[in-house]
Amino acid sequence: MSAVDPRLAKLSLNQRTTESWSVREAVDGCVRAGIPAIGLWREPVAEIGVATAAKLVADAGLRVSSLCRGGFLTADGEAGRAALADNRRAIDEAAGLGTDCLVMVVGGLPPGSRDLRGARQRVADALAELAPYAGERGVRLALEPLHPMYCADRAVLSTLGQALDLAEPFPVAQVGVVVDTFHIWWDPDVWRQIARAGDRIASFQVCDFLTPLPADVLLGRGMMGDGHIDFPPFRRAVEEAGYTGDTEVEIFNAEVWATDPDEVLATMKDRYLQLVLAD
Amino acid sequence: MSAVDPRLAKLSLNQRTTESWSVREAVDGCVRAGIPAIGLWREPVAEIGVATAAKLVADAGLRVSSLCRGGFLTADGEAGRAALADNRRAIDEAAGLGTDCLVMVVGGLPPGSRDLRGARQRVADALAELAPYAGERGVRLALEPLHPMYCADRAVLSTLGQALDLAEPFPVAQVGVVVDTFHIWWDPDVWRQIARAGDRIASFQVCDFLTPLPADVLLGRGMMGDGHIDFPPFRRAVEEAGYTGDTEVEIFNAEVWATDPDEVLATMKDRYLQLVLAD
Repeated sequence: MSAVDPRLAKLSLNQRTTESWSVREAVDGCVRAGIPAIGLWREPVAEIGVATAAKLVADAGLRVSSLCRGGFLTADGEAGRAALADNRRAIDEAAGLGTDCLVMVVGGLPPGSRDLRGARQRVADALAELAPYAGERGVRLALEPLHPMYCADRAVLSTLGQALDLAEPFPVAQVGVVVDTFHIWWDPDVWRQIARAGDRIASFQVCDFLTPLPADVLLGRGMMGDGHIDFPPFRRAVEEAGYTGDTEVEIFNAEVWATDPDEVLATMKDRYLQLVLAD
Repeated sequence: MSAVDPRLAKLSLNQRTTESWSVREAVDGCVRAGIPAIGLWREPVAEIGVATAAKLVADAGLRVSSLCRGGFLTADGEAGRAALADNRRAIDEAAGLGTDCLVMVVGGLPPGSRDLRGARQRVADALAELAPYAGERGVRLALEPLHPMYCADRAVLSTLGQALDLAEPFPVAQVGVVVDTFHIWWDPDVWRQIARAGDRIASFQVCDFLTPLPADVLLGRGMMGDGHIDFPPFRRAVEEAGYTGDTEVEIFNAEVWATDPDEVLATMKDRYLQLVLAD
């Protein structure tokens, strides 16, 4: 790709932010916008195959900052074994795409279950199965604590502290954590936990927290500046913890998805410069 | 009131659960249902005056388990001073109603502000103003951590641990905490914090966490059994922490509000017996 504005050297587009774009379109869009990295999702990658996606990204001179996503590890029995097999495939895909970061959304309570403690234990057990497999392939499982409003139906992993408790039994190269402002901005303990995370930080994701939340609360993620989060303290905190990787912008938002994606990238760059890099 | 089923001796109706009822109707409903305690709200109390409300409750032989609510302490300047004055009135009302528990919802970020740390500090400052005033009147400020999804717009107090950090500089008789299952069920640290809370526990509230959340996320509180929470561990934890007070059922839910309130009370008693008292 052509020369990148040095201030954008660590900016990454998570491809869900431009949901209507294929991998090829998102790669081309990043090149046009001078965005040097991209976070890919398994489903659009599967449409063209891992090898083709890897070649597209490499030919464009982009980095793959992460692959979304593995996880959903809270079921037991057959469903649990199927989840492990699927996660091994996800690890292979991450390796094939040349990224060391596989984002893990661990899953909610199994249908009808109220056993939160048990679900959390199954995540720990599954990690023990998957971490060595990931490490052997140069991939790190990046545990993403999700906002507590998703605890029942999406991720029983709710705080950065809990993610670190889960990660710490494993080598740093095998299990890390995701720092996503949307999910953890409210946490009174977040600064201590980011410092504690240190080189466990495998991904830094930014987007804003909107109110009122939309009817589908999964789509409450907004463009930086449209919500309530003060970003520079988070950027500084991950930097002070030693993180030198990309800052990925991941927005699930019906209005953003209805906007021309090139325009979304232009806004994203502006807001990143003004609101994330600002001191 | 007539003899209460001894298993219901600590059950309390928070009057918002039967939103269409006046104080008088809710008191009468509790008597008919054999529910010995009621949590009142300031607005319906104001419609008839504190003295009349206190007499209605006393004549019916009910306890007032709490008054909802003081708080909204995150503004500064004139709005902050007005909030302090309003909270002093709320304390007087609690005293007048014969309850020692004033539930505090501390307020969200002021409009346009992204200074979460500052908002939290203003809550601490306001507590220092209000706690002695409350203590002199035999009222305890019961800090309610709200689910983190309300951090921006309703309460910057998000965890029980944070509530205890705020409460502990003050005498136990002046500042306590609310343990509300809906708000804290997801917290991986909750068992440690309930044990830590000990005699700071001023109120125990139960209701369930529903998914999908309704369009107005304030109304995601469901009847016990309709959602994802396992209640007995919470009941046992507050008992083991030394709490001997009432268990208040507080449900904000459009469907519950559209149901005949006597029927709501019947369901509430059944679910309480089956799902909260169960071992």
